[in-house]
Amino acid sequence: MNAHTQSDNPALPDSFRARAGRWIESPRIQNLIVAIIVLNAITLGLDTFEVVQVHAGSVLQWIERTVLTIFVFEIAVKLYAFGFRFFRSGWNVFDFLIVAVSLLPGTGAFSVLRTLRILRVLRLLTKIKRLRHVVDSLLRAIPGIGWIAVLLMLVFYVFAVMGTRLFADSFPEYFGHLGRSMYSLFQVMTLESWSQEISRPVMAVYPYAWIYFLAFIMLTAFTVLNLFIGIIVNSMQEQHYEEEENRRQEQDAAAREERDELMAKLQEINDRLARLESSGRTPPT
Amino acid sequence: MNAHTQSDNPALPDSFRARAGRWIESPRIQNLIVAIIVLNAITLGLDTFEVVQVHAGSVLQWIERTVLTIFVFEIAVKLYAFGFRFFRSGWNVFDFLIVAVSLLPGTGAFSVLRTLRILRVLRLLTKIKRLRHVVDSLLRAIPGIGWIAVLLMLVFYVFAVMGTRLFADSFPEYFGHLGRSMYSLFQVMTLESWSQEISRPVMAVYPYAWIYFLAFIMLTAFTVLNLFIGIIVNSMQEQHYEEEENRRQEQDAAAREERDELMAKLQEINDRLARLESSGRTPPT
Amino acid sequence: MNAHTQSDNPALPDSFRARAGRWIESPRIQNLIVAIIVLNAITLGLDTFEVVQVHAGSVLQWIERTVLTIFVFEIAVKLYAFGFRFFRSGWNVFDFLIVAVSLLPGTGAFSVLRTLRILRVLRLLTKIKRLRHVVDSLLRAIPGIGWIAVLLMLVFYVFAVMGTRLFADSFPEYFGHLGRSMYSLFQVMTLESWSQEISRPVMAVYPYAWIYFLAFIMLTAFTVLNLFIGIIVNSMQEQHYEEEENRRQEQDAAAREERDELMAKLQEINDRLARLESSGRTPPT
Amino acid sequence: MNAHTQSDNPALPDSFRARAGRWIESPRIQNLIVAIIVLNAITLGLDTFEVVQVHAGSVLQWIERTVLTIFVFEIAVKLYAFGFRFFRSGWNVFDFLIVAVSLLPGTGAFSVLRTLRILRVLRLLTKIKRLRHVVDSLLRAIPGIGWIAVLLMLVFYVFAVMGTRLFADSFPEYFGHLGRSMYSLFQVMTLESWSQEISRPVMAVYPYAWIYFLAFIMLTAFTVLNLFIGIIVNSMQEQHYEEEENRRQEQDAAAREERDELMAKLQEINDRLARLESSGRTPPT
Repeated sequence: MNAHTQSDNPALPDSFRARAGRWIESPRIQNLIVAIIVLNAITLGLDTFEVVQVHAGSVLQWIERTVLTIFVFEIAVKLYAFGFRFFRSGWNVFDFLIVAVSLLPGTGAFSVLRTLRILRVLRLLTKIKRLRHVVDSLLRAIPGIGWIAVLLMLVFYVFAVMGTRLFADSFPEYFGHLGRSMYSLFQVMTLESWSQEISRPVMAVYPYAWIYFLAFIMLTAFTVLNLFIGIIVNSMQEQHYEEEENRRQEQDAAAREERDELMAKLQEINDRLARLESSGRTPPT
Repeated sequence: MNAHTQSDNPALPDSFRARAGRWIESPRIQNLIVAIIVLNAITLGLDTFEVVQVHAGSVLQWIERTVLTIFVFEIAVKLYAFGFRFFRSGWNVFDFLIVAVSLLPGTGAFSVLRTLRILRVLRLLTKIKRLRHVVDSLLRAIPGIGWIAVLLMLVFYVFAVMGTRLFADSFPEYFGHLGRSMYSLFQVMTLESWSQEISRPVMAVYPYAWIYFLAFIMLTAFTVLNLFIGIIVNSMQEQHYEEEENRRQEQDAAAREERDELMAKLQEINDRLARLESSGRTPPT
Repeated sequence: MNAHTQSDNPALPDSFRARAGRWIESPRIQNLIVAIIVLNAITLGLDTFEVVQVHAGSVLQWIERTVLTIFVFEIAVKLYAFGFRFFRSGWNVFDFLIVAVSLLPGTGAFSVLRTLRILRVLRLLTKIKRLRHVVDSLLRAIPGIGWIAVLLMLVFYVFAVMGTRLFADSFPEYFGHLGRSMYSLFQVMTLESWSQEISRPVMAVYPYAWIYFLAFIMLTAFTVLNLFIGIIVNSMQEQHYEEEENRRQEQDAAAREERDELMAKLQEINDRLARLESSGRTPPT
Repeated sequence: MNAHTQSDNPALPDSFRARAGRWIESPRIQNLIVAIIVLNAITLGLDTFEVVQVHAGSVLQWIERTVLTIFVFEIAVKLYAFGFRFFRSGWNVFDFLIVAVSLLPGTGAFSVLRTLRILRVLRLLTKIKRLRHVVDSLLRAIPGIGWIAVLLMLVFYVFAVMGTRLFADSFPEYFGHLGRSMYSLFQVMTLESWSQEISRPVMAVYPYAWIYFLAFIMLTAFTVLNLFIGIIVNSMQEQHYEEEENRRQEQDAAAREERDELMAKLQEINDRLARLESSGRTPPT
């Protein structure tokens, strides 16, 4: 996931490609790109105010087009410089997709794509090392909790099917079909209005519905709790492990030194004894 | 809780029973069963859409009957192969009950049983090792928190009795009888609409009711928190313990080796001295 | 907090008082009391159902009076047997107060006291060792978080005074006086309907009120979080410390043994050398 | 952040300035100030009750003016005694600003400033050492989570811009402009009425809005969780580290002592051997 390892290669031949790669990844250019991303974030924010749109719409559009050109140019240079190696880094793929989305025509049925332009702000994640580290460490927590997530999804699916079968007729709004049931169950899991708006009305029709809702809440609370604990334990273990490893190596080094000293002393004694032995043996001869 | 230890026994006589047991538990057959469970999960999900029920109802019913037959066959083979040992594993009992429920007539007053068919999806828990491990580790957290759960139930009971006695007349919907009070208190514990919908209306009639609700929220929050902490501490301890144990054994092995080396050296010195002594004693004679 | 240390004293003179004390604290009698508490819990629960009150009210009253008599008798015997030492244990004081409350006349203005009879169920805490341990360990967490609680109260007081001054006129229901403000802030802290029912209406009148609510939520969330962390860290430290201590002692014992062995060997060498020296010195004479 | 290090300097020349500094920071005077702060907290609380304002308004005003005079006097003496060094401590700056705010005219457009007088109660934080420690330890948690907070703000900004672009026309109340969207997203993050009052109505107009809300809730829940874990891990690491360090030093001291003993023994053996060698060599001569 480290984005720019390509340019770290000192053996890169000094072709035009290599120089283009080094130039586009030089801190000067990258900081400029960061500045442009921030500027674009601000203009996209201003663009949401109607008053700004009316009075400075054309300026914003010009900035928008310029920024997009610069982004496309950056990706193009990188593609030229690194070829398909560019796509080996997940962060580069992320960059590429975000810029690609902006190039799609945002008209008609796809007007929602214009809204996705703001995702470009997330390019900051790929540009600022500390943010990248934070996201990387969040992502690293996922595999450790993958199977708990699968379990959670199983629980959701089972309860969604049951809820749809049981309550669809009387509560089409909440349990009309599988999708609605899933959404309602997600709401129940977040504990938002689960009783006043969902469980109590359902219980008015099906008096034993409390079993369904309490079972679901307890199961998901317990599973989510374990999901959280998984992440906590992972994070702590990792950090703790590194620290412990460092201290242990220090301790080991000290112990080894001590031991060497001891063995040297013993060797000295041994040598002395060997000499004594030979000298003790010599006299008799 | 490890489900299939029976077949691990290498000394099992090669009777027909044993071969049936090995066959039903072979990865090929078990993977087939997993595929059937997933298929059944999908068909049961599709069954909730009215449009599917209308156009493909007979197909779904045929699949349903076939799947059930396969499941019954699987359990029957296992029962034949392992006899009563089958029930020694909690997971097998779980499997047996889920399949048994599907065989009950789902008509009339028991129509709700038909809804429980979806629980069959949970058979995935017994079939996929990693999911089983997750559930096992969740279950292992329970004994450590058992007495905190008892305490929580005591708090619930005491507050439910008090709430019923105090508020039943004015708020039959929330505190009409012990069951309703318990449900309402569970809602209050999840903090869902506790103030706007329950506590504020009650306080309008009984101005000092805030003591009741705040005491309950604080007590349960504190107890639940400790319940959570109990699980967290348990999980971490366990994982930490294993790791520590491994490292400690490594360290111990290294220390023992070192010590053996030291003792060997000392023994060498000692031997040399013994020889010297005897040789030193011989000359005078 | 260990409740019954008095009877643990083996040097207790075998007076009638001492024998009464031993008798009342014998497992047989204490288990009987536990059974009576559980029975009383059930009858107090049944007492909340009107139908039971109508048909078996006199039976319940008779049980109630008998149970109370037994409880008073138990406390009286303990008071006689242990005198003022009885009050040295917090759990005994708790027992005493709960039984004392039941003796107060529950009529007229004090009818709420009758409701407090259910608190007797909490006597289980003093009788069942494991429950007592759980409560003790919860209580032990408090001192470590005392000052964070003081800080939380300061934040509450400051925001309650500010809220009352700012919003009392327009929202007497929520911020009418200090007490109401405190209650509303507690509700906001639990995040229950804080925005839809409290903050949004207030913002409709005072547009900058969001600063007040967001600041309060963030401050209390952060403080409560630290309160929780305080408890978690305390619990883990404690448990971790004990375990570590045990392992360390084991390790130390092993190390000491090893060292003794080493020193014995060295002493043997030393002795041998001493003999050699003296024997080596003797010949010349 | 330790507030009063200036007076700890024993080499301070015994000028009038120095004596003023020592006097104002003497426990007697500081305890008096604490008492005055508590008194002021109570009077500011009483001031919120209209009945008290009517009957004792002039007394409260007189107390208010006296307290303010004392606070200004305290700060003035400190400024005189320590000069610009006074501002080196963050706590002193905090004190200064809180008292300064009280001196601003609280009339007309600035009447809200009068409300901020209650912030003076927070001077207790600077005066009571234990509270200062609690706040310091809370503040120390911040740098470790700074970049996660930046990430959270990025997520907020991106979703606020998207929400405003998508939903502003149909839901001006919730997503009318960037500020409203941010507030609504904060409400959604706290899970307060997110579904019943915000997401469900929005979904009635834009059926796919659930993607927006679920993505936001999951992203922020995950980020906030990691923010919390960051704080927990930091706190534990810190405390754990200190303890470990202490034990390790103890262990190291014990190990060193043991080693010295061992080396002394070996040296004794070595010396003995040296003597033996020389004596063994002497005889032959």
